[in-house]
Amino acid sequence: MINFKEDEYLHNLNHSCAHMLAQAVKHLYPDAKFWVGPVIDEGFYYDIDLGDKVITEEDIPVIEKEMKKLAKDGKRIVRHELSREEALEMFKDDPYKVDLINNMPEDEVISAYSQGDFTDLCRGGHVDTLKECKNFKLIKFSGAYYKGDSNNKVLQRIYGVCLPTPEELEAHLKELEEAKERDHRKIGKDQNLFFTHKLVGAGLPLFTPNGATIRRELERYIQDKEIRQGYKHVYSPVLATTEMYKISGHWDHYKEDMFPIMKLDNEELVLRPMNCPHHALIYKNDLHSYRDLPVRMGEIANVFRYEASGAVCGLERVREICQNDAHLFVRPDQIKEEVGNVIKLIFDVYIDDFGFSKDCFKFRLSKRDKDKAKYIDNDEMWETAESQLKEIMDELKLDYYEQEGEAAFYGPKIDIQIKTALGHDITIPTCQLDFSLPERFDLTYVDEKGNKVRPVVIHRAILGSSERFMSFLLEEKKGILPLWLAPVQVNVVPVNNEYHLRYAKEVQELLLQNGIRTELDDREEKLGYRLRESVIKKIPITLILGDKEKDNEQISFRRYGSEETITVSKDDFVTLIKNEINNKK
Amino acid sequence: MINFKEDEYLHNLNHSCAHMLAQAVKHLYPDAKFWVGPVIDEGFYYDIDLGDKVITEEDIPVIEKEMKKLAKDGKRIVRHELSREEALEMFKDDPYKVDLINNMPEDEVISAYSQGDFTDLCRGGHVDTLKECKNFKLIKFSGAYYKGDSNNKVLQRIYGVCLPTPEELEAHLKELEEAKERDHRKIGKDQNLFFTHKLVGAGLPLFTPNGATIRRELERYIQDKEIRQGYKHVYSPVLATTEMYKISGHWDHYKEDMFPIMKLDNEELVLRPMNCPHHALIYKNDLHSYRDLPVRMGEIANVFRYEASGAVCGLERVREICQNDAHLFVRPDQIKEEVGNVIKLIFDVYIDDFGFSKDCFKFRLSKRDKDKAKYIDNDEMWETAESQLKEIMDELKLDYYEQEGEAAFYGPKIDIQIKTALGHDITIPTCQLDFSLPERFDLTYVDEKGNKVRPVVIHRAILGSSERFMSFLLEEKKGILPLWLAPVQVNVVPVNNEYHLRYAKEVQELLLQNGIRTELDDREEKLGYRLRESVIKKIPITLILGDKEKDNEQISFRRYGSEETITVSKDDFVTLIKNEINNKK
Repeated sequence: MINFKEDEYLHNLNHSCAHMLAQAVKHLYPDAKFWVGPVIDEGFYYDIDLGDKVITEEDIPVIEKEMKKLAKDGKRIVRHELSREEALEMFKDDPYKVDLINNMPEDEVISAYSQGDFTDLCRGGHVDTLKECKNFKLIKFSGAYYKGDSNNKVLQRIYGVCLPTPEELEAHLKELEEAKERDHRKIGKDQNLFFTHKLVGAGLPLFTPNGATIRRELERYIQDKEIRQGYKHVYSPVLATTEMYKISGHWDHYKEDMFPIMKLDNEELVLRPMNCPHHALIYKNDLHSYRDLPVRMGEIANVFRYEASGAVCGLERVREICQNDAHLFVRPDQIKEEVGNVIKLIFDVYIDDFGFSKDCFKFRLSKRDKDKAKYIDNDEMWETAESQLKEIMDELKLDYYEQEGEAAFYGPKIDIQIKTALGHDITIPTCQLDFSLPERFDLTYVDEKGNKVRPVVIHRAILGSSERFMSFLLEEKKGILPLWLAPVQVNVVPVNNEYHLRYAKEVQELLLQNGIRTELDDREEKLGYRLRESVIKKIPITLILGDKEKDNEQISFRRYGSEETITVSKDDFVTLIKNEINNKK
Repeated sequence: MINFKEDEYLHNLNHSCAHMLAQAVKHLYPDAKFWVGPVIDEGFYYDIDLGDKVITEEDIPVIEKEMKKLAKDGKRIVRHELSREEALEMFKDDPYKVDLINNMPEDEVISAYSQGDFTDLCRGGHVDTLKECKNFKLIKFSGAYYKGDSNNKVLQRIYGVCLPTPEELEAHLKELEEAKERDHRKIGKDQNLFFTHKLVGAGLPLFTPNGATIRRELERYIQDKEIRQGYKHVYSPVLATTEMYKISGHWDHYKEDMFPIMKLDNEELVLRPMNCPHHALIYKNDLHSYRDLPVRMGEIANVFRYEASGAVCGLERVREICQNDAHLFVRPDQIKEEVGNVIKLIFDVYIDDFGFSKDCFKFRLSKRDKDKAKYIDNDEMWETAESQLKEIMDELKLDYYEQEGEAAFYGPKIDIQIKTALGHDITIPTCQLDFSLPERFDLTYVDEKGNKVRPVVIHRAILGSSERFMSFLLEEKKGILPLWLAPVQVNVVPVNNEYHLRYAKEVQELLLQNGIRTELDDREEKLGYRLRESVIKKIPITLILGDKEKDNEQISFRRYGSEETITVSKDDFVTLIKNEINNKK
């Protein structure tokens, strides 16, 4: 997505378009007073005082028409520099501008920009003429408190974008539309997947049956895959004593992001922000020989982070986070192989199972820099680790770059970014080396010579968290989920309830008994209507059961996105669908 | 298990035996000083000051021998009443007894009991002669702080039991042995299933890979079973605002058992003690017609209860509880059928799947009494509900009794108790009607006439919680789990590592790829030793792979508890085992 603040020409173009919006509004509402009209990442807006007038859907085309006229007319935009007195005289009828002028630093050069009959107080910069502003669109509008203070008057805020060419504008608007359609919060509402409630709290979504099904399938999928790869999954409590987080170092480095302390009896408990210390204690509960390593310890684990209430967003940023977490306790000579396995697992999941392209991935090797005080002190470990990470990335032919000074204090890491369909770079899987945790919790194994030595810990997450991965997947797939993940896998539609309902129920029962998630649409609605609804709900498979199917004990079905109707025997259908589900298609 | 404090004769017998223990110790250690020797639920103990002497395993038979001599001799036990001065004079050499005397109330009659050469300060009662004390056993010993204060001296505490006949003693000792063997904390340690750690906190067990496997299999098992029966599972946060628990009534009725409040931004959050309000909000998030009911909403859900740190115990009583919870939102006319389904599900799980006997179950119909102020006010609802509950229990031919005044304030319930192998009655599954929750959260559905009316809520749990059910199951099964639940299902033992290890690894890989939990015992130990260890670890199936198996690509295996070795092809073995696992055998 374009960032309109980053490119100087786009910035000026949108700034000029904001002035053109104000000029048009002034023509239509001569009493309008103007507060500020800045360029933002998404384009521009202007906050306008229209007295009691509230902007509605109907006003927007009228304003746009007036703006088009101004753009066609194409007046030059001219800069004037003013003394403070001249400025106050020029804007004496507009209290907002007077306020702005009075708040300017003494030494600032005050400037205004004019275009025909309209002059606005402004620092610039602008394009040369309004002609350049002709490829614009007003996007949305809302009320906005003057100076953001809810005790103040509500102004009318109108948002817009302006691009250099009609083609670019069209492409951008299409992208906006797509982003709106892809927004996982919209999909979540349309498909009834999750919601939040003020009685529960900010950043604490509740997963309804549909959303819970997706989440459960994802969690079981990754857990089963990890177990097949030799991971051992554990359960650990979401609470621990503050004492533990003092030992782990979270208390010093992470306290701001943690929930408040709870005092009980003679303990101080806190909701955990990470699982590492719990897993360290589980490792430590057994004796380990060099032969037992690596120990790959996984958990589908809730952790809690005190995100600002303004920062929480849908499933993307929540306060109770269900991590697909694991800690690999490895010998130093196993780092390369184990990191390689993690990267292969990431590719296996994202590329083979979910169909993303390898080109989406960008890797960064984050190394320490020369400021040794910032990092834990073990040169040999750092050098071995960094060279092992390089080797494995070379061997896997990964597209990566190196960056000094980006390592964690406890070890180097591989930062993995994925480019989304909308072009954002986001971080979901992680793979970090840690030399500190084994020290802090005195973790050991017995080496070949019988000495107690420290393992290295690899922190890694594949899906990141259930919440984050779901929001990502829903946006990437536009809410169209593969059969194995779809909350409703098969929608059973009898052609006519009077004649075909009993057979439809029989089929539904057969599918349910085979573990296939099935709904029956026996509403008294026309067949065409019910089939269309099945498509709107993005159900992967829709059964159409009429006379032919009932008489021959058959099933006719359509797949989402296809008009083709296929007819098979009941048993063949069950076998086919079960196979597809088991193969995660 | 016998409670020695509840029966008067057993109480006196054990009290006299405590005196006999003290007498024997005095004979063996003439400098011994005596603190108190009370009767407890499990028998008796005596706290003794032996100077620097610490009781060891070797001392116990010597003390028992001296006690046997005293019992055979069979002196009469004689009561004396003493003035305070006489008492102080009599025990002047024993500072502990002097302390006791000085702390007695002014008006108390001071008494002592004598048997031959030994007199002890004592309130009584006792049996007539030491002859009656001959069927005793010293059970265990430990250090114990004087007056329980860790700043004081450590005394030697010796525990024992005494029974009227040798047969009763033998039966009791056998039961003790069995209870020790069945204790899920011992099994948990032997099989490395879970542990607690002071850095995490009291009542917060960590599940190691073995224990986590059992828990995961149990949770998936019950979730899958419920889903096949039409339950919809959800996920909801473990936090909520205190506001929610004020509405639900927990704040008034349950606050003492809840964790402390956490203040964030402008919210007050608290760890939930129950899920009901979360599920009520999820129900409320959709519109419901009479046709959509019952809505059966399930969750494998963590809840938090502030148990006293002295009350927490292994997995039986914990502070973070993973409930197999569900709420059924039903029409009043559906109560009978839905409660019936719950009871059938309980039998399906406990009897069909886990092999318990129907005779273990005891049902109680808990009804309201005449004190109407104690219950929510809806006569018709109560009458309908109670009669529906009776009807369904009659139809299912359940052994139940009715009890007035035992209903919850919000509705009648069926209390279900299970008799354990040790004879205890415990409560795991529950089934309660609730007319209050729908009121408090304004839950409705639209009835056939188009009116908004209240559903009834059925609270139910089948496994209770993962923790409680695991502790129950481990104790009932003495740690011998069915194949589908066993942490390690198959132990692969090559006869000789030199010749058979490669084939063993091939077999292990085949089993792992088929999702069968497998270990390979390739230690350089004798075959017999490794096979015995496999039995000690209670692994259901042990493979013995030697020349014959390697040459013919076969597998020879033994089942736990059998000496028979069966040989089959690799593929047949995989099919056999997978079938048994899928059928939960």
